[in-house]
Amino acid sequence: MPGATRGRANTDADSGDARARLVAAAVEFFARKGFHATTTRDIATAARMSPAALYVHHPSKEDLLYIISRDGHRQTLRLVRGAVAVSPDPAVQLATIADRFAEHHATHHETARIVNYELSALSPDHLDEITAIRRAIEAEVRAVVERGVAAGIFDTPDIAMTTMALLSLGVDVSRWYRDDGTWTPERIGTYYRSLALRIVGSRVS
Amino acid sequence: MPGATRGRANTDADSGDARARLVAAAVEFFARKGFHATTTRDIATAARMSPAALYVHHPSKEDLLYIISRDGHRQTLRLVRGAVAVSPDPAVQLATIADRFAEHHATHHETARIVNYELSALSPDHLDEITAIRRAIEAEVRAVVERGVAAGIFDTPDIAMTTMALLSLGVDVSRWYRDDGTWTPERIGTYYRSLALRIVGSRVS
Repeated sequence: MPGATRGRANTDADSGDARARLVAAAVEFFARKGFHATTTRDIATAARMSPAALYVHHPSKEDLLYIISRDGHRQTLRLVRGAVAVSPDPAVQLATIADRFAEHHATHHETARIVNYELSALSPDHLDEITAIRRAIEAEVRAVVERGVAAGIFDTPDIAMTTMALLSLGVDVSRWYRDDGTWTPERIGTYYRSLALRIVGSRVS
Repeated sequence: MPGATRGRANTDADSGDARARLVAAAVEFFARKGFHATTTRDIATAARMSPAALYVHHPSKEDLLYIISRDGHRQTLRLVRGAVAVSPDPAVQLATIADRFAEHHATHHETARIVNYELSALSPDHLDEITAIRRAIEAEVRAVVERGVAAGIFDTPDIAMTTMALLSLGVDVSRWYRDDGTWTPERIGTYYRSLALRIVGSRVS
């Protein structure tokens, strides 16, 4: 997949650059004004394009939201799978997920807000596709909790609700995080390692 | 304060009813479309009024957002203070806060989303007032955590960050909660009691 993207950029650099500018402009406006209040003219102007040129690349404002949401969710799924791959130990896997997930939601808080708070603006087909990625993310985290409980190193009365709480705690970082706040994304990530281990009742926390 | 409100409603029932209809209509539209994309016409029509009649009660759309936000935050502050009042034991206080806070954010998820996700749309003066109430809520929760640590029944390395995590976990319920989901607000509240005690490293969890 990365190879295919690179290939396209090499043969069609201007078009790829225009698309990237449109996505960046859409992130900026969706984050500031919300999806519904953003106009295609806002996005086109910020990307130094005419509204007509925007439609060459994206058939609608919703299509831009879909691209942002799809890419954001795919990135989070890769992040979680990468964290699971660092160790066979469920405690290390969970701590790494919590760390990277929280740090990601701080660093990329603008995109993360759009990805998590504008789902209802997606078309039904696009929402189905995004929901499938969200379920895959949840399944990865739940599987780590299940393995920890099965191994006797985690102790939690409801694996589904604990999984929801773990994801919820990380997602909400994107709401409260401020670039001018006292806590860096790295420090938040480190703290969330221990919070996650406490939430699952880990013996090593 | 409740006496003053009742008195006003008794002497000016129609006006009070109109205000309540406008607030209910604003909650509905802000929750569905977001503050920026909602028009005063949307709100007036849903409240069965002309836009001109809306301005008799509220000078702007932002004024309605302010009323919703102020009342929502005051309600949460009362909820937290009421939970602290149930017992002198910090563990009982914290468990009660977590229970009621999470249940509230599930039951009133539409209002809670507006209250927490539309702060940037408030005027500077109104934001200052709301921020003061948010700081009071945070101070109540932090004081409970501090008392628990001082009493040796909680064990947490960073009281400020732990307080943020406790509030964050409760607020985010309003994002993921669904009326047609499997978990009732009551069940979520009960589960969040134990999550909160785990997060603070309570010896009684």
